[in-house]
Amino acid sequence: MDINDLSKDLAPIISNTMADVVEVKLREYLKKKSFKPGDALPKELELAEALGVSRNVLREALSRLRMLGMIESKKKRGMVLARPDILGAFERVLDPLIIDKNTLQDIFELRLVLEMGLAELLYINKTNKDIAELESIAKKEVNNDNSFRIKNEIAFHGKLYEMSGNDTLKRFQIMLLPIFDYVVTLEKKPTRGLVDHLGLVEILKNGTVEDFKKGMQAHLQPHFDRLK
Amino acid sequence: MDINDLSKDLAPIISNTMADVVEVKLREYLKKKSFKPGDALPKELELAEALGVSRNVLREALSRLRMLGMIESKKKRGMVLARPDILGAFERVLDPLIIDKNTLQDIFELRLVLEMGLAELLYINKTNKDIAELESIAKKEVNNDNSFRIKNEIAFHGKLYEMSGNDTLKRFQIMLLPIFDYVVTLEKKPTRGLVDHLGLVEILKNGTVEDFKKGMQAHLQPHFDRLK
Repeated sequence: MDINDLSKDLAPIISNTMADVVEVKLREYLKKKSFKPGDALPKELELAEALGVSRNVLREALSRLRMLGMIESKKKRGMVLARPDILGAFERVLDPLIIDKNTLQDIFELRLVLEMGLAELLYINKTNKDIAELESIAKKEVNNDNSFRIKNEIAFHGKLYEMSGNDTLKRFQIMLLPIFDYVVTLEKKPTRGLVDHLGLVEILKNGTVEDFKKGMQAHLQPHFDRLK
Repeated sequence: MDINDLSKDLAPIISNTMADVVEVKLREYLKKKSFKPGDALPKELELAEALGVSRNVLREALSRLRMLGMIESKKKRGMVLARPDILGAFERVLDPLIIDKNTLQDIFELRLVLEMGLAELLYINKTNKDIAELESIAKKEVNNDNSFRIKNEIAFHGKLYEMSGNDTLKRFQIMLLPIFDYVVTLEKKPTRGLVDHLGLVEILKNGTVEDFKKGMQAHLQPHFDRLK
């Protein structure tokens, strides 16, 4: 029996710092007491005493909640609960150099899933003005060299997500794009799908939502082929 | 000219705490120096001195990075860069009671987009064993009362995402589901799509990826109708 077997059977005890513990306790407390955005929190000194921790440890935990946008400090009112930026923390960790390979692959696939699933929202919300803007983005791509490719991809797909009328989704996909591109460039030669951006614009103008799904599938086919 | 116009023209200056500033500086430093997971960070005292801040402020910022899973403490080696849990922080803020209405709606739509876009991954990765398990979950639903509905939804759709072979996606959708359900229950009476879970299983057994997309669309139709 070697050490690896042993560590498999005896799962390592995760050593939480005091800040970890206090952070969890604070979040549980806010939830249990049904704190709403705008509600004032007890003062630091009271919280530290109630938790039996030093003010430094409490401040560490509060700083985490502040980073998540869950609390903010208001003049005169002190700390209040705030509406968190749900993607803020996600954005901070999306660095291809520190994310493991499996997760990079997962994110690559996640973006494919989003692109494929976008059709319904697009067809509910698209306007002629949107389509005209999208077309002018797609037309700019012709004759552009490869260094502009990523910029164009961001512009075109960013506009598509904007047309979906969903700000969270738009921001989310902009975050995912560099990871997606990182994975793509790890592969050998980039291949292009049978339907290009101008082809997708044409479908949005005259085709049905089913046509668009087929067009997007053809556009992304080289990426799906990689997964097989 | 009222105060609202003024505050629109003069965007409020965001008052960053010292910890905000130090956190950004640390992340920039790690990126610039191409730190990789496992690399040891300089000691706290050195970092605090280089940044010209107190150790307490530095610890606040480090605590944030620790929460994001970007750094961890190792015996003898001190702080090292770690592979962050990319969804950990996201999970912390996904509370329907503190998220604003527009973002709740965005998340509702995001889940619809994921469901609609999942077909390709499912058809690449599905196995007979998976389908049998999915079927047994769907069969358990019959005659269940409404209180089990959410549990069944989680089980069924969780299994679907598991079948996609994408762990990040699976975890992501499990996080989104309570928000999705919260939005659904805000509406009046729940309506059911023309294709139920057993119908989707049947398609996975004998239908094409196109059939599955149509089936999922019919399954989710009542939700899409809400968006119009």
